[in-house]
Amino acid sequence: MENGVVKWRFKGRQELIDASAGTVRAVCDAVVSNLNPSDERPVIALGYGDPSSFPSYRTSPIAEDAVVDSVRSAKFNSYNSTVGILPARRAVAEHLSKDLPYKLSPDDVYITIGCSQATEIILAVLSSPGANILLPRPSYPYYEARAAYEHLQVCRFDLLQDKGWEVDLDSVQALADENTVAMVIINPGNPCGCVYSYEHLEKVAKMARKLGIIVIADEVYAHMTFGSKPFVPMGVFGSLAPVVTMGSISKRWIVPGWRIGWLVLTDPNGYLRKHGIVECILSYLNISADPATLIQGALLQMLEGTKEDFFSNIRNIMNEAADFCYDRIKDIPCIDCPYKPEGSMFIMVKLNMSLLEGIDDDLDFALKLAREESVIVLPGTVVGMNNWVRITYAVERSSLEDGVGRIRSFCTRNSKLKNPLCHKP
Amino acid sequence: MENGVVKWRFKGRQELIDASAGTVRAVCDAVVSNLNPSDERPVIALGYGDPSSFPSYRTSPIAEDAVVDSVRSAKFNSYNSTVGILPARRAVAEHLSKDLPYKLSPDDVYITIGCSQATEIILAVLSSPGANILLPRPSYPYYEARAAYEHLQVCRFDLLQDKGWEVDLDSVQALADENTVAMVIINPGNPCGCVYSYEHLEKVAKMARKLGIIVIADEVYAHMTFGSKPFVPMGVFGSLAPVVTMGSISKRWIVPGWRIGWLVLTDPNGYLRKHGIVECILSYLNISADPATLIQGALLQMLEGTKEDFFSNIRNIMNEAADFCYDRIKDIPCIDCPYKPEGSMFIMVKLNMSLLEGIDDDLDFALKLAREESVIVLPGTVVGMNNWVRITYAVERSSLEDGVGRIRSFCTRNSKLKNPLCHKP
Ligand SMILES: Cc1ncc(COP(=O)(O)O)c(C=O)c1O
Ligand SMILES: Cc1ncc(COP(=O)(O)O)c(C=O)c1O
Repeated sequence: MENGVVKWRFKGRQELIDASAGTVRAVCDAVVSNLNPSDERPVIALGYGDPSSFPSYRTSPIAEDAVVDSVRSAKFNSYNSTVGILPARRAVAEHLSKDLPYKLSPDDVYITIGCSQATEIILAVLSSPGANILLPRPSYPYYEARAAYEHLQVCRFDLLQDKGWEVDLDSVQALADENTVAMVIINPGNPCGCVYSYEHLEKVAKMARKLGIIVIADEVYAHMTFGSKPFVPMGVFGSLAPVVTMGSISKRWIVPGWRIGWLVLTDPNGYLRKHGIVECILSYLNISADPATLIQGALLQMLEGTKEDFFSNIRNIMNEAADFCYDRIKDIPCIDCPYKPEGSMFIMVKLNMSLLEGIDDDLDFALKLAREESVIVLPGTVVGMNNWVRITYAVERSSLEDGVGRIRSFCTRNSKLKNPLCHKP
Repeated sequence: MENGVVKWRFKGRQELIDASAGTVRAVCDAVVSNLNPSDERPVIALGYGDPSSFPSYRTSPIAEDAVVDSVRSAKFNSYNSTVGILPARRAVAEHLSKDLPYKLSPDDVYITIGCSQATEIILAVLSSPGANILLPRPSYPYYEARAAYEHLQVCRFDLLQDKGWEVDLDSVQALADENTVAMVIINPGNPCGCVYSYEHLEKVAKMARKLGIIVIADEVYAHMTFGSKPFVPMGVFGSLAPVVTMGSISKRWIVPGWRIGWLVLTDPNGYLRKHGIVECILSYLNISADPATLIQGALLQMLEGTKEDFFSNIRNIMNEAADFCYDRIKDIPCIDCPYKPEGSMFIMVKLNMSLLEGIDDDLDFALKLAREESVIVLPGTVVGMNNWVRITYAVERSSLEDGVGRIRSFCTRNSKLKNPLCHKP
């Protein structure tokens, strides 16, 4: 304090701002802030994958009852063990074991604050000095943000658009070096909506084995498939290479706001334990936030009790929505959908920049679309695909129709073509 | 892979193990693992501050109903804005403003995963290279663990035992240098059970102003006082120095497993915003775990609806338990309670090492007490007080009586005195 004027010594940590800048949240917020408040039409939000507020996507009554029972029992009000409560761990172990050639134990399971915190944990644990990790391109940007925060180096392998967005295993091999510790795959895929075959996943596992690295399998969209390929968990190949499987109730039970997920060691040979990964996970959990015990208390009832027709109904709605989106976008000038999604909640739309008048890039497209049509889409740059946008079709059908209609008007209006609508078949 | 033997390249990050080693959880786990499984008496856990599983400490029906209403409404299933949902932020702003000379806005409030995550956030935000922070000794060890994780340097000022554990402001002044950004105070205090007066808090604020630093006020035990001094929030002095107030529903509503808390800028001059702290908080929130929307949806009803007699009933139970503990421990050989707690949930007990036979230190005391009497207490070293132990009296009365009785047997048995029980008044 000099002459009565205080010199405050604190300042914010710049690095944080950089790490968070490219997240879906940060970019969607920027797009949302470009909305035109005087447009009286409802905003159509196709930027995030969260249909939970729409009546057709309301979660199962079984799930709601499970939480009510948990509250009324008064048994789940306490701090819990950092790894999660035993009934919840056991429920996840049983649930996932159904699709595996071996049986998981509750000790293989850590209950997390959604799949997001599972990501946070595994990246923190693997961030030894000098280590690097292989991420897909395109990808879900949270990986990059958390890796930046932890100073974990990132290399990017390609997903091959013309091969159903399969992993380019040659690029994986070329990128890996002696400091590479893991590779990430997202299946069913975000942002591409791809689903990997048994054979492809086996090749991924063999490559990981060859390189001596972990496969981190983001299966937050597990079982949300509606093409010809069934969902195969990466853990099926856990005896080839150690697999860390991550998932949650956010997408399949449509309750992302309940913030419950899991990190699971699908590693029947116990390599992860032997190499000190388990000890580090426990240490990290000791100094980080816990998922609500109250909702963990509902997990057993949710996983065991939810009926197959809840899931198949949602799958049908999503399948029809994906078809609708794909078919209509084909008819819209200046944009294209080269790939019909087979799972998750998204479709990638390619912008034909040479045909769009006065639009610089995908961010500009998203900003102007928000401004002029009150429709939110995610600029593809965020997921590693310049001049594409990501659209979710998991919204109420009427909103989807309205949204796609507005995108059509926008593209038609901003097309360089004289008769844009005659230009497509 | 050489000759068919895979060389796995990953390893755990050692630093994590170091950061988590001294947490209450880690140390309590170690003590618990020393229990004797063949002792058939129930384990009496006096190590943590979590009475939520005891019938006398069951949370208010208002709180339970609030969560049930939140679930049944189906309005709180979605991802939420990283800062928390508006009704929850508004509820916390109103709730805290009642005790402040100015009015908080919802924008001053961030909803967090308990007070723990609020700690995590503010330490992460302040961890610019070179920065240091002042922590009290004794203290709650989560601060040290998170600071270690973030590579934020820590200096320790003393709390003065003979002055009701007030902050030694001279040591604060002596320790601070041009890289000091903040000091932490915990009021009501953990581990000491002290409660600070208006006058003392004002002096703390003036010192912070003089040094140009933030006061981080951990008020997780807000209003849990039962001595002569009422609870005064640090934010009352927010116009002297910027205050970050942290709190939660864990203690006062006795629902730590619901994982809801808050980080609040009690800073009417807006210094925190001006110095980039707000921007960094927002960035950090963008890349970290969120509190469950479902439980945030209950916060308004909980904060507005819980009746004063719920709180006063709990306060009475705790007050009686603290008195009982204090009175009985005075009569136990080889240990002492120099300070009668006036708030929070703990009492610090001093070990008279020269009178204890075959016990090396506080950790050894806790380990042997667990082994021989199935009673868990927290070794004082964890909170920065060698050869003390921390005991919580916030357990069911019958358990407390049983536990204190067993501590008496243990101390009597391990005393060097011939007639240990005659030795105390
Ligand atoms: C690929 C992917 N992983 C992880 C997450 C985070 O999911 P959760 O809600 O379980 O944290 C998402 C959310 O959209 C996602 O798309
Ligand atoms: C001083 C102090 N701060 C913070 C916490 C964490 O509280 P919460 O449950 O709100 O995360 C505790 C818990 O015991 C505590 O004693």
